[in-house]
Amino acid sequence: MLEEIREQPAALERTLATSLASVERLRRLLEPRRPRFILLAARGTSDNAAQFGRYLLEIATGIPVSLAAPSIFTLYGARLDMREALVVAISQSGESTDTNLVLERARAGGARTVGITNAPRSTLARLAERVFLVRAGREKSVAATKTYTGQLLMLYLLAYALGARLRIDDLRRLPEWAEAALRLEKEIAGRAGRYRFMEKAVVVGRGLNYATAFEFALKLMETCYIVAERFSSADFLHGPIAMVGPSFPVFLFAPSGVTWPSMKPMLDRLRQIPAETLAITDRSNAEAGRGGQSIVIPARLARRGPLPVELFTPIPYIIPAQLFAACLAAEKGLDPDRPRGLTKVTRTL
Amino acid sequence: MLEEIREQPAALERTLATSLASVERLRRLLEPRRPRFILLAARGTSDNAAQFGRYLLEIATGIPVSLAAPSIFTLYGARLDMREALVVAISQSGESTDTNLVLERARAGGARTVGITNAPRSTLARLAERVFLVRAGREKSVAATKTYTGQLLMLYLLAYALGARLRIDDLRRLPEWAEAALRLEKEIAGRAGRYRFMEKAVVVGRGLNYATAFEFALKLMETCYIVAERFSSADFLHGPIAMVGPSFPVFLFAPSGVTWPSMKPMLDRLRQIPAETLAITDRSNAEAGRGGQSIVIPARLARRGPLPVELFTPIPYIIPAQLFAACLAAEKGLDPDRPRGLTKVTRTL
Repeated sequence: MLEEIREQPAALERTLATSLASVERLRRLLEPRRPRFILLAARGTSDNAAQFGRYLLEIATGIPVSLAAPSIFTLYGARLDMREALVVAISQSGESTDTNLVLERARAGGARTVGITNAPRSTLARLAERVFLVRAGREKSVAATKTYTGQLLMLYLLAYALGARLRIDDLRRLPEWAEAALRLEKEIAGRAGRYRFMEKAVVVGRGLNYATAFEFALKLMETCYIVAERFSSADFLHGPIAMVGPSFPVFLFAPSGVTWPSMKPMLDRLRQIPAETLAITDRSNAEAGRGGQSIVIPARLARRGPLPVELFTPIPYIIPAQLFAACLAAEKGLDPDRPRGLTKVTRTL
Repeated sequence: MLEEIREQPAALERTLATSLASVERLRRLLEPRRPRFILLAARGTSDNAAQFGRYLLEIATGIPVSLAAPSIFTLYGARLDMREALVVAISQSGESTDTNLVLERARAGGARTVGITNAPRSTLARLAERVFLVRAGREKSVAATKTYTGQLLMLYLLAYALGARLRIDDLRRLPEWAEAALRLEKEIAGRAGRYRFMEKAVVVGRGLNYATAFEFALKLMETCYIVAERFSSADFLHGPIAMVGPSFPVFLFAPSGVTWPSMKPMLDRLRQIPAETLAITDRSNAEAGRGGQSIVIPARLARRGPLPVELFTPIPYIIPAQLFAACLAAEKGLDPDRPRGLTKVTRTL
């Protein structure tokens, strides 16, 4: 897992370089007939990438997006009206049975289809009209890392193809920002010991980093067997915060931008309890690094332009979280590459 | 909280009786121009009701549904293309700031709007074109119970108004099924002691009862301070099941119908670990009540017809879970009506 985490800058660079031409073609193709509605279908880590895609695509393109509930197709056999819809299935292996079935049904129902996968000869690659190939190389660890960030990159490219005013030049900087996050490895390995006996935790993110909270929590669950809940700061205040007493561990993703004014009072409130907070941030949001424990990515990630300032934080922000999960698993004497009871490809009834 | 749980059959009966005429009017109004897309906006318990609505509406009407991510409107100021959309905001108090803002923006963007609330003079009731009033009476406990089942009832009525082939006569039986579930109170109070020291748990549901798992977990979090995760059985297998070791508590909603063939092998696998499982079911699915601990609602809830056999289980199924949370809070010496750090109306930045 650690090795695959470290491969991310190279994987991102390779994926971007090999995708640009086909993305430009798709942009020209979609320009005259934009979809009215986008459905994202995925499971597990890929579903966390889809969660990011949901925010990114709605914010950057104005097209309404829904995350598919696969059982509606697979168990209930519902026939949704999919005319003028774009369906995007995301799966590392391309062999997730229910994700593939959603894509197949949607295509039969009149939708245009895109597949995002790591596996060029997979069932998904065969079923989708257009395929975005994540060139992360084979992922051996059951805990997905480099395929997740590769999927996020593809979702930026998909937003671009749908007309978002993203600059491709900003995407070219992602490998370097991922590299900056990787420089935290030693610091994070040193911190992990403190969490040796942690059995439960909460991870909070909001907006574009809501998905980052989901993905960190999933990594803590599958590699460290920690019962890790994930919330948006807004939902957390609507009830679950009641369970937080003194020294309860809460991890927060705290970039600069529009989510910070709601994250800040939550962080203050948690520190008063006093919960054990750890804020993950970067040099653009110095305030989040003060007054409590924090992990600060050594780069300034805030961007200017018509899109949110924290637009490019989700890839670098998940990297310290991946490192944290891998180092904590080692502290706990667990093997993150082979969690008990899991296999790499999950087929769902 | 216990008193309000017990009021549910009467509240359901009152709500149904006072809503039928306006629902029939809405059905006639929507018939010639069905929406192309439905957006459900809510927070907290109401968001769990929306989760149910998502499954119900897609299965019963074939119209694609999305659960709103309010920050996309409130923080990012995105303008989504809402022509031909129906936006449904759900809020007990009608004063949830971000839910109301989603509704306002969507209406300005061309959507038709419906509000589901308990408060006839609330901001939500004023903003929505059409209001569905839950007649649950004032809810004093911070932990919502009777307003949740009232919201589910309204979503059945909304599905009917959108052309679903629901029989209103089946809805008339809901108060009686809720009554049957309430007869479990003494049995559940007797069981609660066993869970006195439970600090973490997983709740699993699928399809129409995925929302029931969310709502049970939320009740455990806010009234018993238990770190309770909620999963669909499919997502649970994609990673989080790794954290389940011997005696780990897992609660499962197990009605008869299409979800049972996937729930059954999961229950068997959990029992082999052996996790501490508790299946909530009814007399239509005798198999789920055997071979391990279970709570069986004393009624047969499976229905025939073109819609799923477990269509009417979500209201009676949440009731034993509400009773469980209230009784366990009492065992733990906590006051479920006033959880630490919470207020009844949550305003979100």
